[in-house]
Amino acid sequence: MSLSLTIHQTSGSARRATLSLPHAAVETPAFMPVGTAASVKALPQHFLEELDARIILGNTYHLYLRPGHELIRRMGGLHRFMSWPRALLTDSGGFQVFSLNELRKVSEEGVRFRSHLDGSSHFFSPEHSMDVQIALGADIAMAFDECTEYPADRARARESLDLTLRWARRSKDHFEAHCHLAPWSAREGDALTGQRPNLFGIVQGGMFADLRRESAERLVEMDFPGYAIGGLSVGEPRAMTREIIAATLPYLPTDKPRYVMGVGYPDEIVEYAAMGVDMMDCVLPTRAARHGLIFTSEGRLNIKSRRFAEDQGPLDPVCPCPVCGRYSRAYLRHLFAAQEPLAAVLNTLHNLAFYLDTMRLVRDAIELGTLPELLVRFRARENAAAAGEA
Amino acid sequence: MSLSLTIHQTSGSARRATLSLPHAAVETPAFMPVGTAASVKALPQHFLEELDARIILGNTYHLYLRPGHELIRRMGGLHRFMSWPRALLTDSGGFQVFSLNELRKVSEEGVRFRSHLDGSSHFFSPEHSMDVQIALGADIAMAFDECTEYPADRARARESLDLTLRWARRSKDHFEAHCHLAPWSAREGDALTGQRPNLFGIVQGGMFADLRRESAERLVEMDFPGYAIGGLSVGEPRAMTREIIAATLPYLPTDKPRYVMGVGYPDEIVEYAAMGVDMMDCVLPTRAARHGLIFTSEGRLNIKSRRFAEDQGPLDPVCPCPVCGRYSRAYLRHLFAAQEPLAAVLNTLHNLAFYLDTMRLVRDAIELGTLPELLVRFRARENAAAAGEA
Repeated sequence: MSLSLTIHQTSGSARRATLSLPHAAVETPAFMPVGTAASVKALPQHFLEELDARIILGNTYHLYLRPGHELIRRMGGLHRFMSWPRALLTDSGGFQVFSLNELRKVSEEGVRFRSHLDGSSHFFSPEHSMDVQIALGADIAMAFDECTEYPADRARARESLDLTLRWARRSKDHFEAHCHLAPWSAREGDALTGQRPNLFGIVQGGMFADLRRESAERLVEMDFPGYAIGGLSVGEPRAMTREIIAATLPYLPTDKPRYVMGVGYPDEIVEYAAMGVDMMDCVLPTRAARHGLIFTSEGRLNIKSRRFAEDQGPLDPVCPCPVCGRYSRAYLRHLFAAQEPLAAVLNTLHNLAFYLDTMRLVRDAIELGTLPELLVRFRARENAAAAGEA
Repeated sequence: MSLSLTIHQTSGSARRATLSLPHAAVETPAFMPVGTAASVKALPQHFLEELDARIILGNTYHLYLRPGHELIRRMGGLHRFMSWPRALLTDSGGFQVFSLNELRKVSEEGVRFRSHLDGSSHFFSPEHSMDVQIALGADIAMAFDECTEYPADRARARESLDLTLRWARRSKDHFEAHCHLAPWSAREGDALTGQRPNLFGIVQGGMFADLRRESAERLVEMDFPGYAIGGLSVGEPRAMTREIIAATLPYLPTDKPRYVMGVGYPDEIVEYAAMGVDMMDCVLPTRAARHGLIFTSEGRLNIKSRRFAEDQGPLDPVCPCPVCGRYSRAYLRHLFAAQEPLAAVLNTLHNLAFYLDTMRLVRDAIELGTLPELLVRFRARENAAAAGEA
């Protein structure tokens, strides 16, 4: 384990901290852009550096299938392969195995599934997921879990939670025995020689608060360097997401990083940070950008709309990003309407800038003691956006 | 007319010059990237600035259809609309009307054609092409011409050439009467107030040297500030392209810029520059990039190829571009194979860097008197590439 969390300040349950990882110091609460197939879609890596992203995600399932984890290992690991010198986190592959595969077959041993690319048959066990993630060599790997579907009744949620806990144990044992084989851990003469990747446990338990508590407590007994809350954003209402996070956080240690996977809208990430979450990731800002949905300090806008055809203003008048500094809504609307590839580049750059700035605002507000006001502001904007869309 | 050509040095027929335009000083011989629909596909404008591109193209046909020239005029002209402060050149729309429309109908008055977007019916006359181009407000506009098809017999080439000459007269008369209406010419208090866009004439004449000569001589009598050789790269063999350029250049004034439209491969642009051409444009580097075809100092390579799957070297070991400085062939091959949008961004950036560097080499070689050696080197590489593909 090569990780430390230094808490600088708290504000209610929220914490302003620095998460030190082998490849970067991450200021938290942090939003982590998703780089599914070794690329945050459409963005050159130096744009992410200019936005001061310190950690991004890679998806184990996608990278395992293409280009293959052994190829990436031979290329020196994912950092070198994609030329990203800062921190990386890989998921376990479990979420994609469950969400992209109708024909998966789960057993105690693991999951058999078919590639969404060519239909070929594959098998992931906790041990195999660890081997793949160690080959990729992210700073943070995730335990192999079963992402419980929604809705799931109590019996199903318990059964799934128990399996995830057994897999967590197997993940941890295998990871600890082999994580020294991560490309940069094993490389002679590397500045990071001897440092190790870190494995986080994942809380499951469906939408049952007591099961979540049990899952958290039993994971904490295993003593991971960090904990994630998984199985959310799977179709449940937002109030339920919030409730489950609230029911789980008290059972996760305050001196370790806490990560909620796969959330959310801007007001959600502010809210969860206020509740004490340190790390979040979501495809929303990048995927929405490619569909023309833009996040701004004035709420969401759809750049496709005709009303922007002659709008000479920037996407967001108070945004300091390079897109808002240079291009008009009229131009961005034209790029989108003309299906120009530059539309995805610029929209993604702006949306990620907005998300990363939002987290900067959260960190500043924790330091200044103004987090409640920030939260009120983000909620009001979201309510206005929702009303505008209704 | 607001244009001057200052010739610094000659080497044989080649000239090293500076073309001063309202929005930029362009070092020639110059390659001009094509930005069809107000975007050099997949590239943010500041990348083009970092590559030191001084002039890029816009396509009148595409911009007329979408977003519309009147919209662009209201947005302050194409420079402002796309946030490109340097020089722009627009074609006349003629080439696209002829190449994208099977059902066009040509008359003395102009061309009726159908939109490739929605099938709607449109009419371009020389006067209308000028009005559209003045609304776009490029530094250089092009006379409305008929791009003679290939093959065309002598009678057809003569008829087409005569029509183009009558249209050139009409283009020039209308342009001179209205070019003060270009957005930046007309804008009060603009640094460019009172400066004017420039109109180039286009030589046609099919593949007949004597008709090309006649076309050139009759255009020169009309006294344009610059001349283009059009109707090439329409399917004829490369030797014929070269022959027609060679047969035309002696009849174009040496004190004005000479532009060959729509060429070519790297060795071609070096060769034509050596023959005395000052300006060239082509979709090849950008379009090829999107299909994975990469130009390098060692010849062409197809990044799709499996042989690059684990190649940790850059696209081109001597290329100073940001792509070669950061990313491996293995990574770029993966991005292409995974259909990641970043593939188009990075491949395009590299290919344009290579083309612009090629022209820098040409300009240096003219100054140093080493152009013949440079040409030999580029030809040998092209022969090797052609042999490798055969």
